[in-house]
Amino acid sequence: MTPPPAWRQWLPALPVLQWGRRYNRETFVSDGVAALIVTIMLIPQSLAYAMLAGLPPEVGLYASVAPLIFYAIFGTSRVLAVGPVAVVSLMTAAAIGQHAVPGSDAYWAVAITLAFLSGLLLLAMGLLRLGFLANFLSHPVISGFISASGILIAASQLKTLFGVQAEGHNFFELTRSLLSQVGDIHGLTLAIGSLTIAFLFWVRSGLKPLMMNLGLRPRAADIIAKTGPVLAIAVTTLLTWRMDWQAHGVRIVGTVPQGLPPFTMPVWDFGLWQQLLVPALLISVVGFVESVSVGQTLAAKRRQRIEPDQELVALGSSNLSAAFTGGFPVTGGFARSIVNFDAGAQTPAAGVFTAFGILLASLFLTPALYYLPQATLAATIVVAVLSLVDFSILRKTWRYAKSDFIAVVATLVTTLGVGVETGLVVGVAVSLALYLYRTSRPHMAEVGLVAGTEHFRNVQRHTVLVSPRLLSLRVDESLYFANSRALEDRINSAMASRPGLEHVVLQCSAINEIDGSALESLEAIDLRLRDAGIRLHLSEVKGPVMDRLKATEFLHALSGKVFLTHYQAIRELSPEVG
Amino acid sequence: MTPPPAWRQWLPALPVLQWGRRYNRETFVSDGVAALIVTIMLIPQSLAYAMLAGLPPEVGLYASVAPLIFYAIFGTSRVLAVGPVAVVSLMTAAAIGQHAVPGSDAYWAVAITLAFLSGLLLLAMGLLRLGFLANFLSHPVISGFISASGILIAASQLKTLFGVQAEGHNFFELTRSLLSQVGDIHGLTLAIGSLTIAFLFWVRSGLKPLMMNLGLRPRAADIIAKTGPVLAIAVTTLLTWRMDWQAHGVRIVGTVPQGLPPFTMPVWDFGLWQQLLVPALLISVVGFVESVSVGQTLAAKRRQRIEPDQELVALGSSNLSAAFTGGFPVTGGFARSIVNFDAGAQTPAAGVFTAFGILLASLFLTPALYYLPQATLAATIVVAVLSLVDFSILRKTWRYAKSDFIAVVATLVTTLGVGVETGLVVGVAVSLALYLYRTSRPHMAEVGLVAGTEHFRNVQRHTVLVSPRLLSLRVDESLYFANSRALEDRINSAMASRPGLEHVVLQCSAINEIDGSALESLEAIDLRLRDAGIRLHLSEVKGPVMDRLKATEFLHALSGKVFLTHYQAIRELSPEVG
Repeated sequence: MTPPPAWRQWLPALPVLQWGRRYNRETFVSDGVAALIVTIMLIPQSLAYAMLAGLPPEVGLYASVAPLIFYAIFGTSRVLAVGPVAVVSLMTAAAIGQHAVPGSDAYWAVAITLAFLSGLLLLAMGLLRLGFLANFLSHPVISGFISASGILIAASQLKTLFGVQAEGHNFFELTRSLLSQVGDIHGLTLAIGSLTIAFLFWVRSGLKPLMMNLGLRPRAADIIAKTGPVLAIAVTTLLTWRMDWQAHGVRIVGTVPQGLPPFTMPVWDFGLWQQLLVPALLISVVGFVESVSVGQTLAAKRRQRIEPDQELVALGSSNLSAAFTGGFPVTGGFARSIVNFDAGAQTPAAGVFTAFGILLASLFLTPALYYLPQATLAATIVVAVLSLVDFSILRKTWRYAKSDFIAVVATLVTTLGVGVETGLVVGVAVSLALYLYRTSRPHMAEVGLVAGTEHFRNVQRHTVLVSPRLLSLRVDESLYFANSRALEDRINSAMASRPGLEHVVLQCSAINEIDGSALESLEAIDLRLRDAGIRLHLSEVKGPVMDRLKATEFLHALSGKVFLTHYQAIRELSPEVG
Repeated sequence: MTPPPAWRQWLPALPVLQWGRRYNRETFVSDGVAALIVTIMLIPQSLAYAMLAGLPPEVGLYASVAPLIFYAIFGTSRVLAVGPVAVVSLMTAAAIGQHAVPGSDAYWAVAITLAFLSGLLLLAMGLLRLGFLANFLSHPVISGFISASGILIAASQLKTLFGVQAEGHNFFELTRSLLSQVGDIHGLTLAIGSLTIAFLFWVRSGLKPLMMNLGLRPRAADIIAKTGPVLAIAVTTLLTWRMDWQAHGVRIVGTVPQGLPPFTMPVWDFGLWQQLLVPALLISVVGFVESVSVGQTLAAKRRQRIEPDQELVALGSSNLSAAFTGGFPVTGGFARSIVNFDAGAQTPAAGVFTAFGILLASLFLTPALYYLPQATLAATIVVAVLSLVDFSILRKTWRYAKSDFIAVVATLVTTLGVGVETGLVVGVAVSLALYLYRTSRPHMAEVGLVAGTEHFRNVQRHTVLVSPRLLSLRVDESLYFANSRALEDRINSAMASRPGLEHVVLQCSAINEIDGSALESLEAIDLRLRDAGIRLHLSEVKGPVMDRLKATEFLHALSGKVFLTHYQAIRELSPEVG
């Protein structure tokens, strides 16, 4: 087989060419069944998340057609279901709110531009292989961010559930705005919303056991339970129509245009692009992280793999396609991908079939949505996002690592108190700062020989043999600029407090790297020790570290020696102990 | 002995109480001789660095009185000589230039305010024990910054050497401004300046050998060589007076007020404080780093120690005292501290005597400075700062660590091209980003058993025994949020490419920490492996890491076991190899 030409590596891969060739009737049936179930689940979600983003409901449908097809061509996950998701929709609303009035055409145009920029950024990150950047979002920060976003989203839906107007991009603004209108609450609207919420929670907890008692298999019962929102929509729409609730002041979805997704263009305004750049970047990163975590979890269950950099390309092309077909920022959704997986989807063709289903809905179903109460959609959002809120991370991090706890709290508090964008940036900054702080104060232990062995342990924890003429120091961290001075300090204080000292031996078994600053520190330490008549030795230096030290003058200038094992060093330098 | 009351720890220490009690005639004589020599060296430096900062020359003298006394009370170095220094003076000029016209009273008032803020920040950092923050300035960044500052300072003095006017805060602005006035160069001024530069370089390289040939000891010859600038000042001042060069257009220092340092107050303008906050912070950090490196190097030569947090308190009080006595930001100087040390200073009392010497100079000597050509001072600055410029760091870092090289180049280029403040911030940001990048892609090696031993080595470097049923993976980095996904990826790809895999064993000998995110990754890895019928084991987990894992559910949920040594793991899990 001839290897592919070199320029091929600069083109994005086309996973469709692999699974497409082996496509057959069996996979077609599996994919078709899964697509039907996901379509039924996706219709209410698309409408609801468009509303959450401040956009007309049909935009949610538009955003669930082309993006699925493009993901099917470029994506590496077999089962990821792409489309509007809760957190990205909230971030979209926060980003656009400063530039246009929700509901206006200008607002929609900015949403399209945001999807375009987000698509470009994802595509660029994928082609430049920058997928690793997402790793700097730590689990605690993501956890805190998702929980806080869930609370913000639920709070933002209260106005629709109460039938009042409210504004705000953080929890305090939303709460204050709602409290000021507590007298205007519309009883019937609240009744529709709260009964829908109660029904949806019952579907989650009560319907599945019921159906299993009726003889359904757990997986089938699970899938039927996911159709709860569709049932709620059908019932409340019918009731609103028959009982003429609209005349009693219940807000309805109203006319949703019928037809294919329109061809649209982003706003070509460089000033607007500059202002949207940071929000677009944050939306891209959050969307990518959410999508990749779901994709990885599901792929591993079938011993498949996903390629993060190729996922960036796939999500980038999905968002670009959303921008040209009247959509808004999309990514791989958690709940719908799991449904797709559980329903037996085998290839990304299931996504194409789903897109076809949504297309049919946007062509023929939209008139049926006229009497759908907005409160029903709000209720489906509230129930969906409350499952995102999980404060167990607070207890977990408090017990395991205080620095993670601080990062979670910082993210939670700033996301709720200031807003999604600030919350995310502060969370990342705090978690990186805490990591750097920890590595800047490495654990260093003076070690001594455990009698009768060749093992060395911390003198403060164990009864060990030591010599007053020799200091054995083990540093439990790579040496780099932020912690090299800590080593200098430690050795300086040892010099000052131990008049009889002749040798210092650094046990380097946990040192994975010595950077240039640390090398200079070691040189300075060696010079100072030499001035004081003390020799510096190293032991158990790792291969890659030794390779780099050999390229410098350091080993020639070193006053002492490099020993293969710490025991050899002790045996030679203080035989009375070894 | 009763222990000191608890509140004592919140007060700054007073090292003067220790060395002051043991003060005697012998140390008095040593300190006095050293102080005389440092005074002679400090007078021209004070005048020159005040000029560099854009301030009248007497301000340099004022800044060399009270700060020395306060450092003597609070400082932990026995020999550090505090006062105006080149880089801090340059940063002062850059910071004040945006707020007032050099030479004006308003400019001086802003300089005083800057010293005040810088003093407050240093004091606060000292009392809060934040000295470790300075560790985030890596050696390469400091090197690049100091070299670039040296070039900027030398370039800024060319206008005085050429007798023209020029402006600019970066190298390009300065050069363009100078080139536009190349026709106005004043010949006599240039002659004075260049001859002084030539003389000072000869003093450095030629005078010392000459005097040693005349029978002087090297140290004495060294000290006399340091008086070169005083000699140059005396000769050029006399010549200018006798030859009436002022009438020929040579700019002179002119009237320098006689008298004690004045009592001054910072400008109480909160808006100005906010604008000066970042420059004051950068000046504080740079001053602290310079001072502590000198202090540490000299203390180590006599097996003494300095306390970085107490040094912050000492430098903070020095700068506050400068603000109240008409001075500007100060710190411990490199050259003068070495002279102080070499001349035999034993205690900080030498600093008090130096302050007294400068006080006498500002009372009686200033009329003698009337005819001092400004070009002579510029020449002393140029010669002093060119010794700061050292590009060997470029070659050194290129050979040893490319990431350090990138940090040096980024610092050099932005300091020269944009300015000192941006240069420093960019340097720190780049070096931290590169460190995080490296730790986010840890070195991971699949290891196998070296036949006939209990050692495990990288399968790609050595001929070792492996089993297709078992993957031994050694991770050479602590596991934290930025690299835990890399481990997941590595294990996912192993799962996908090895159908017969039954066990994965992580050798944890180089893992110094597992943070919360990494723990969640390990849990996720364990779940995925378990779904695929593979068990996850750990070996050689460090004590502190194990202590924290034991506090979680992880070890109970783990599909495999924790082995004390990797060899035990292999012997039990794949006996055909072990």
